[in-house]
Amino acid sequence: MSERLVTASGGRRIERVAVLGAGSWGTTFAKVLADAGTEVCLWARRAHVAEAVERKRVNEEYLPGITLPGPLKATDDSAEALSGADAVVLAVPSQTLRENLAGWRPLLPEGATLVSLAKGVELSTLKRMSQVVAEVADVADDRVAVVSGPNLAKEIAVEQPTATVVACSDHDRAVALQRACSTGYFRPYTNTDLVGVEVAGACKNVIALACGVASGLGYGSNTMSTLITRGLAETTRLGAALDAEPMTFAGLAGMGDLAATCISPLSRNRTFGERLGRGESITEAQRAAHGQVAEGVKSCTALRELAKRHGVEMPIAEIVHRVCHEGLEPVPAAVELLGRERKPE
Amino acid sequence: MSERLVTASGGRRIERVAVLGAGSWGTTFAKVLADAGTEVCLWARRAHVAEAVERKRVNEEYLPGITLPGPLKATDDSAEALSGADAVVLAVPSQTLRENLAGWRPLLPEGATLVSLAKGVELSTLKRMSQVVAEVADVADDRVAVVSGPNLAKEIAVEQPTATVVACSDHDRAVALQRACSTGYFRPYTNTDLVGVEVAGACKNVIALACGVASGLGYGSNTMSTLITRGLAETTRLGAALDAEPMTFAGLAGMGDLAATCISPLSRNRTFGERLGRGESITEAQRAAHGQVAEGVKSCTALRELAKRHGVEMPIAEIVHRVCHEGLEPVPAAVELLGRERKPE
Repeated sequence: MSERLVTASGGRRIERVAVLGAGSWGTTFAKVLADAGTEVCLWARRAHVAEAVERKRVNEEYLPGITLPGPLKATDDSAEALSGADAVVLAVPSQTLRENLAGWRPLLPEGATLVSLAKGVELSTLKRMSQVVAEVADVADDRVAVVSGPNLAKEIAVEQPTATVVACSDHDRAVALQRACSTGYFRPYTNTDLVGVEVAGACKNVIALACGVASGLGYGSNTMSTLITRGLAETTRLGAALDAEPMTFAGLAGMGDLAATCISPLSRNRTFGERLGRGESITEAQRAAHGQVAEGVKSCTALRELAKRHGVEMPIAEIVHRVCHEGLEPVPAAVELLGRERKPE
Repeated sequence: MSERLVTASGGRRIERVAVLGAGSWGTTFAKVLADAGTEVCLWARRAHVAEAVERKRVNEEYLPGITLPGPLKATDDSAEALSGADAVVLAVPSQTLRENLAGWRPLLPEGATLVSLAKGVELSTLKRMSQVVAEVADVADDRVAVVSGPNLAKEIAVEQPTATVVACSDHDRAVALQRACSTGYFRPYTNTDLVGVEVAGACKNVIALACGVASGLGYGSNTMSTLITRGLAETTRLGAALDAEPMTFAGLAGMGDLAATCISPLSRNRTFGERLGRGESITEAQRAAHGQVAEGVKSCTALRELAKRHGVEMPIAEIVHRVCHEGLEPVPAAVELLGRERKPE
């Protein structure tokens, strides 16, 4: 690499990426990378999914109706996906990230940027995803990046324009990743406040679940906007306690992602909450979601614990926890949440 | 008034209120005040509207289907409405506020708190509504209050729970007004940052119009959330230039009102933008809105001027102005707005 290139790119380039996990967001992000001209290999756990991507350019189960770009490779062999990768994108659910990554650890290329797409807090340890990644991969914190923003996969897959945040405490890595995933329809902004971006990503699913409950009870846009605003305020309070930058919460990974998740009919957490609000049980709502539990159902408990540990008031996370895990009914939950005392804002 | 009462209420009580203007928000706010136990007289320009409120407890034209509370009085005589009022609520359109208030000025009770419900910036002077009120009524700035938040009138009228901000640089007046309009379904918070609350209220209609255009072009929740986030950022920049408190924009009158206006199908500005996005002309969109021009169509020009005067970048207000007044088509407008250069957030 010439000195000029080193200067221009901040000393680092991402030319080949492994995306581990072929769910809707992993597959969509692999498409974004490929469309940006980056070499990508997508790993799927199941051979038939990888084969369909390779041969038919489709992932019918998680991204129906989307034709994937020609240069996108896919495999069910993680060693093949990881070989020679400058960046490794971890696109598996937050509560299984530790176990999955432990298996991949011996295969991680030296020096590669590790990118988490998972949003949540590990229930057993209350750690953020980037902390889990750094710990399991045994790398310094500044090797880990996250991507987060108003990024409903199904809209990005049809190339609707959106923006996102690429966060890494090492600014050069963030810039390299930004370049690797910039396309006409996907605009990444860099940020070094990894903590803020991750706290925002973990909280938004819980707030979206609360918005869903309110919507299921028949409340409209005023109530939803009040919940979004108060939800971002409690997210920002938790972030401040964890030394995040307050401005992150006003940005795309904070307010942007929260708004998208709360208003979209495509959001799993909001839909799950709606079912609860309409009177369905957790079990019924789960059955309707093909057995998948919405992320917010787990995150609310972890966030409540984290808030307690840091002495932060998070009334929405608290109420969602009580609805999801302690049998509190939606109607008294709404009264409790929306009927608090008058005071300055 | 006993000394004890003076202490408890911060020296001021609001027991009787005149609401001037019987549109949907004026009528709804009159209902809120009456439900809160405050004596209210609603003034309507047209005698038959006042009569219908008095005799049938309805305002069919602006709040169809809602039964208004028994104690709510109505009149088409502004002297009768204003007589003995501790607070005067101005619920007329922003561009006609000056003219209306000039007519009422001789009738304003001494010492009464003047409350603006209008959102916008006066086109001819670039003044905020509270500045127009203080100037025309010839009172000190701290006599003027504003009420603003995620407050779609039609949802409040059916008593869906919401919160709002009562802003006045005189905290005691804000508290007195807060007490006068607190009900089980309407929760006011006080704030002394009048400037921030008004800047937020003026900008949100323009952002909602932009969201409508995006929606009319077929864009989904990611794009809308990106516009909401970037819109709040440019609103906050303008506020900072006018010495507003940054935190106001993260609150109910900032993010809360913006989100409600952008996501609600009941919002006139969003609906107007949607029609433009679907290819209708300004004239056609206006005809569909029964001849009413959406507030954002006027505000965008005033805000653009204000931004220029203070050296603030407001790309969304700029683009909305060009779409509404300079013939820029929605598709190139979207490309220009969503396709800017990569940079840190």
